[in-house]
Amino acid sequence: MNYESSMNFYKNLIESGLANYLSGIKNIEKNLMESMGYSLLSGGKRIRPILMMAFHELFGGNPIDIIPFACSIEMIHTYSLIHDDLPCMDNSNLRRGKPSNHIAFGEELALLAGDALLTNAFDIITSDKILNLFNAEKIVKVTNLLSSAAGASGMVSGQIIDLSINEKNANINLILDMYMKKTGLLIECAAQMGAVLANASDEQLGIVKEYGRVIGLEFQLVDDVLDIYGDENVIGKPSGSDNKNNKHTYLSICGLEKTKEKIRDLTCEAVDILNDLGEGTKFLKELTVSLGCRVS
Amino acid sequence: MNYESSMNFYKNLIESGLANYLSGIKNIEKNLMESMGYSLLSGGKRIRPILMMAFHELFGGNPIDIIPFACSIEMIHTYSLIHDDLPCMDNSNLRRGKPSNHIAFGEELALLAGDALLTNAFDIITSDKILNLFNAEKIVKVTNLLSSAAGASGMVSGQIIDLSINEKNANINLILDMYMKKTGLLIECAAQMGAVLANASDEQLGIVKEYGRVIGLEFQLVDDVLDIYGDENVIGKPSGSDNKNNKHTYLSICGLEKTKEKIRDLTCEAVDILNDLGEGTKFLKELTVSLGCRVS
Repeated sequence: MNYESSMNFYKNLIESGLANYLSGIKNIEKNLMESMGYSLLSGGKRIRPILMMAFHELFGGNPIDIIPFACSIEMIHTYSLIHDDLPCMDNSNLRRGKPSNHIAFGEELALLAGDALLTNAFDIITSDKILNLFNAEKIVKVTNLLSSAAGASGMVSGQIIDLSINEKNANINLILDMYMKKTGLLIECAAQMGAVLANASDEQLGIVKEYGRVIGLEFQLVDDVLDIYGDENVIGKPSGSDNKNNKHTYLSICGLEKTKEKIRDLTCEAVDILNDLGEGTKFLKELTVSLGCRVS
Repeated sequence: MNYESSMNFYKNLIESGLANYLSGIKNIEKNLMESMGYSLLSGGKRIRPILMMAFHELFGGNPIDIIPFACSIEMIHTYSLIHDDLPCMDNSNLRRGKPSNHIAFGEELALLAGDALLTNAFDIITSDKILNLFNAEKIVKVTNLLSSAAGASGMVSGQIIDLSINEKNANINLILDMYMKKTGLLIECAAQMGAVLANASDEQLGIVKEYGRVIGLEFQLVDDVLDIYGDENVIGKPSGSDNKNNKHTYLSICGLEKTKEKIRDLTCEAVDILNDLGEGTKFLKELTVSLGCRVS
C-alpha cells in the first residue's frame, strides 16, 4: 500500500471503531451519547491512533486487533479538547470548524461528556474481548502507559503549566516542558502502546519512545505556526487565537524562521531515529515528513 | 477485632495509602498536587474502600494488599464530588465543612484536579508493583469493573439523569434509576472489586453484587434524609440544599416516614443477603446497620 492508501486504511479502522464503540455503550443517556459523539466523531486528524497502528504493524502486529486501544487514545485526546475549550479554561467557541462542545450542548454536558470519554477510554481496553486477544500483562502495561501519560504527571500537569505561563516567567525551557507534557507524552504513549502490544523488545521500545518525544514536539511547533499563520477555513478554528490570548509560545519567543528551522531539524531527527528500527518504516517516515509540513 | 477497631484499621490503611500515593507522584505541578490533596485528604467517610477491604478479607484476602485498589475508588469518588460542585453543575461552595475545591483553588484547577484524580485512579491499579502481587487477568477485570461503573453507562449517566429531573418528569422510577447509577454502581463496584481480587466464586460474586445494589440505595436514601434533616455542623455542608435547589428526591416524593421505612427495609435486606455468604460477615453486618443510622 502507498502512503495515502495506508492513511485511509488506518483512518477508516479508527472512524468505524469509534462509531461502533460509542453506539454499543449500554444504558447511556441519549444526550450524553450525542455530546460524546459530537466531539469524538467530528473528523480529527487521528494522528495518535494512526501512529499506534503504524508502530504495531511495524513490529509485526495486525492494526485491526488494536482498534480498541487506538480508540482509547483518541477518546482521551478528545476529552482533553472538550475540557480545554470550557469557559474556565481557554473559553474557545470553535473547534474543528464547529461550535465547541459546550456551545452546542451546554457546560454541564460538555464537562460530563469529557469525563465519560476519559473514563471509558479505560473501559474499551479492558473488555473480555481484549482479554481474549492479548496477554493480560500487556494490557495492564499499556493501561499504565496511557493513564500515566494522560494523568497528573503528564497531560494534566502540561495544562497546569500552560495556565501558569505569563509575561514574567515565560522562557523556552518552561514552554518546552509544557509542550512535552501537554502534547508530547500522549503522542509518545500512542507509539509505545502500538509497539508494546506487538511485543517489541526493550531496546526497540527505547527507540520508539525517543521517536515519540521528537515527533510530539514537532507536532506542537507546527500547531504554533498554524495558529498564527494558518488558514482558519482549513484549521477549523480562528487563527491568531494564541496572539489574541497573549499566549507565550515557542514561536512568540523565537520567531517564525527559528521555529520553522526547529521543525525541519526535528523532522530530520525523527526520520533518523526511524532508521535505527530497520526495514519497514517507509510509512512512518512519510508520516513524519507530512506532519512537519501539514496545513491543518 | 471489634467493629471500631476494624473501622480504624481500614481507615488508617486508606488514609496513609492515599497520602503516600499522592506524595509519590513524580513531575507533578505543586498547585495541582495541592488541589488534589485538598479534596482527597479531607477526611471523607471512605465507605467505598472500606467495603472493598471488608469483602476482600471476607473471601480470604489481606486488605493491605489492595490498598491501591481501595485508593483508586476513593479517587474516583473524590473527582466526582469536585466536578459535581463546580458552578456549571451544583454550584456548591461547601464540602466536608470546607470551601469546595473550586472556591479554594479556582475553577481551572478544580476541573484539572478532578481530571487527574480520575486518570490516576487507573494508574495506581496498574503499576508494576500491582502486577507483582496480583494475577494480570484479575487486574484487567477489576479495571473494567471500575471504568464501567464510573463511566458513560454508570456514574456519568447518573449525573446526567440528575440534571434532567424536573417538576414534570420526576417520578420514583426515574429517581431510583438515577440513584442506582449516580451512587449505587460505584458502591457495588467497590464490594465486587474486593471480592474478585480475593478470587471469590461467580456465585459469591453474584451475592456481593446484590448486596452492593441494596446498600448503595440505602446509602443514598440516608443522604437524602441528612440533606434535609441533618445537622450541618456534622454533615459538613449546608442542610436543606436539596430543598433550596428544588431537587426531586425519594424523600421529597415519598415523605420522611416512608423513606425511613425504606431505609430500614433495605438494611434488613442487606443483612439477609450477607447471611448467604456464610461465616465471617459480622463486620459487614454492623457496617450495614450503622450506614442506615449514620448522622453524617
